[in-house]
Amino acid sequence: MSDNNSNQPKLTPVSELGEFGLIEHLNKNARNSNASTLKSIGDDAAVIQYEKDKVTVISTDLLVEGIHFDMVYTPLKHLGYKAVAVNLSDIYAMNATPRQITVSMAVSSRFTVEALDEIYAGIHTACNTFDVDLIGGDTSSSRLGLVISVTAIGEAKAEDVVYRNTAQVGDMICMTGDLGGAYLGLQILEREKQVFLADSNMKPDLTASKYLVARQLKPEPRNDIIEILRNMKIKPTAMIDISDGLSSDLLHICNQSNVGCDLFEENIKLHPDTLETAMKMGLPPFTCALSGGEDYELLFTVNPKDGERLREIQGFSIIGRITEATKGRYLYTQKGVKHELVAQGWKHI
Amino acid sequence: MSDNNSNQPKLTPVSELGEFGLIEHLNKNARNSNASTLKSIGDDAAVIQYEKDKVTVISTDLLVEGIHFDMVYTPLKHLGYKAVAVNLSDIYAMNATPRQITVSMAVSSRFTVEALDEIYAGIHTACNTFDVDLIGGDTSSSRLGLVISVTAIGEAKAEDVVYRNTAQVGDMICMTGDLGGAYLGLQILEREKQVFLADSNMKPDLTASKYLVARQLKPEPRNDIIEILRNMKIKPTAMIDISDGLSSDLLHICNQSNVGCDLFEENIKLHPDTLETAMKMGLPPFTCALSGGEDYELLFTVNPKDGERLREIQGFSIIGRITEATKGRYLYTQKGVKHELVAQGWKHI
Repeated sequence: MSDNNSNQPKLTPVSELGEFGLIEHLNKNARNSNASTLKSIGDDAAVIQYEKDKVTVISTDLLVEGIHFDMVYTPLKHLGYKAVAVNLSDIYAMNATPRQITVSMAVSSRFTVEALDEIYAGIHTACNTFDVDLIGGDTSSSRLGLVISVTAIGEAKAEDVVYRNTAQVGDMICMTGDLGGAYLGLQILEREKQVFLADSNMKPDLTASKYLVARQLKPEPRNDIIEILRNMKIKPTAMIDISDGLSSDLLHICNQSNVGCDLFEENIKLHPDTLETAMKMGLPPFTCALSGGEDYELLFTVNPKDGERLREIQGFSIIGRITEATKGRYLYTQKGVKHELVAQGWKHI
Repeated sequence: MSDNNSNQPKLTPVSELGEFGLIEHLNKNARNSNASTLKSIGDDAAVIQYEKDKVTVISTDLLVEGIHFDMVYTPLKHLGYKAVAVNLSDIYAMNATPRQITVSMAVSSRFTVEALDEIYAGIHTACNTFDVDLIGGDTSSSRLGLVISVTAIGEAKAEDVVYRNTAQVGDMICMTGDLGGAYLGLQILEREKQVFLADSNMKPDLTASKYLVARQLKPEPRNDIIEILRNMKIKPTAMIDISDGLSSDLLHICNQSNVGCDLFEENIKLHPDTLETAMKMGLPPFTCALSGGEDYELLFTVNPKDGERLREIQGFSIIGRITEATKGRYLYTQKGVKHELVAQGWKHI
């Protein structure tokens, strides 16, 4: 279950390479594909230059062992991929295009060079998949476990950037993909971990939960959505990525835009596996979607005429309506009961 | 000696505020002073826009408890200041002007809101001193101590940026300020820590070591140097900040520029306190300068005609000459002995 490289023939302590040797080793596969990357790794700072009419969009996230990930069930390659993916998701949520990232890591001595290679394999895979350049970072030892800090940098035309605070009364609320899967994936992994800890001869069978586990371990930022909206010439009025849970993230838009909302539970899209597994585990499936978080789908508001066009497109769901602030923020359940919308996303603090 | 807030009346656990409450609390004093900051904290990403002919310069550093700092003798406010200062130093070392930073922190539950306020007081002081805006970040709990990750973003005209790999044969090698102080400051703090651990009634007297301790705890990035050079219309041919030690950082320039060097020990500037304390502690003073690191002075190469002009200016020292790569890299000691220059900077890995 764990990816601790115990079967690999060669285990090189990080101390064998030294700081500069390690940086060189980890970045030997880094290739820059963006013309905007003028100077990458190897100087005091990286240098980038976007086209004249573009703004620069920057986001940063920290992944901490024992808080954001558990080494028992997180393959290192997936961890590297996810660390990049969640940052790119923030850039897409601004309706911008990521071009560069920096990656800093603090690693304890129990991590070998081969283990770091796995993490970097995931980082490079994400870079190649989303066409971003790894342009810098910092590597440090740690007495304290693994910490990964990623900063993503992207570009957009100033007039294309979509903020959280610009939703308009009457707008439709739209979500992409399906929600709750990442949360259930985590519950499955935690359950299997407990089984494994109780009896290490028990091998977990995750094949039936493949979709949900993948949602947790390898989230995919929705660059495709940004592309579709651009092609349809639809600019959302406000947008956020769903990292904390639908309730929490919709409330961010409402608070910052100073508007209310009506959210319709029955319109929230769930994957069949999410529905089935939630039932089996005795969890209310829509609560997983509303409060689970980490799905990295996009949540946005659009002018009703754009909303009507999106209603027809696979992968988009119209789930509610922006109202006046004085109307409040409400969730209408499948049974037609009206609840005040509250943020119950999990917090890493 | 320690800054653990034990005398403060109010100690608020971080959990009392929650993640979003904490972010709001810590950033309530953040004020943006740069026109290039279009969107700061509060969205998925920050948005910045520099003038049309400018490039963007980005650097990132990680500070890890127990590796880069010791909570026993590091006041939290100084820690916040230093975390920003060392990143700004990297931007100045590109001959660029820092405008924005992001700050991410992982904190264990033993840190109270009041302790984080102290760290942020240092961060805000650095932001005000160097005119940079705090535009984003991430806050996470940690089971494992304190980690601070800072990314600094700055601007420069493309033709003004100074890299490490462009030193020319015949250039003079120039350093700013004095070296070795930060290393000796650390030795003093470590010594006093041992005294304190042996007998907690012993109060350290650091007044005689004020300069050296300040060099370690509160390094000042050399924005003034960049300004002086600009006013004198001198553009270095290559530049780096001295974070790893003079030997190591000069070798970075030599390796990347594919050149050799002659370095003259007697021209390396030491502060009188550095000299005196090194002698008392039985440490070779020039070794502290060559290998100590963390002084955050600037090391650069210039055309000889510019070097001659700088020779006259207080705060600049001409310490050597760039030679052909085939000539090798050499240190000439005060006694006239020629040694191959080797990197012996301390490594945080």
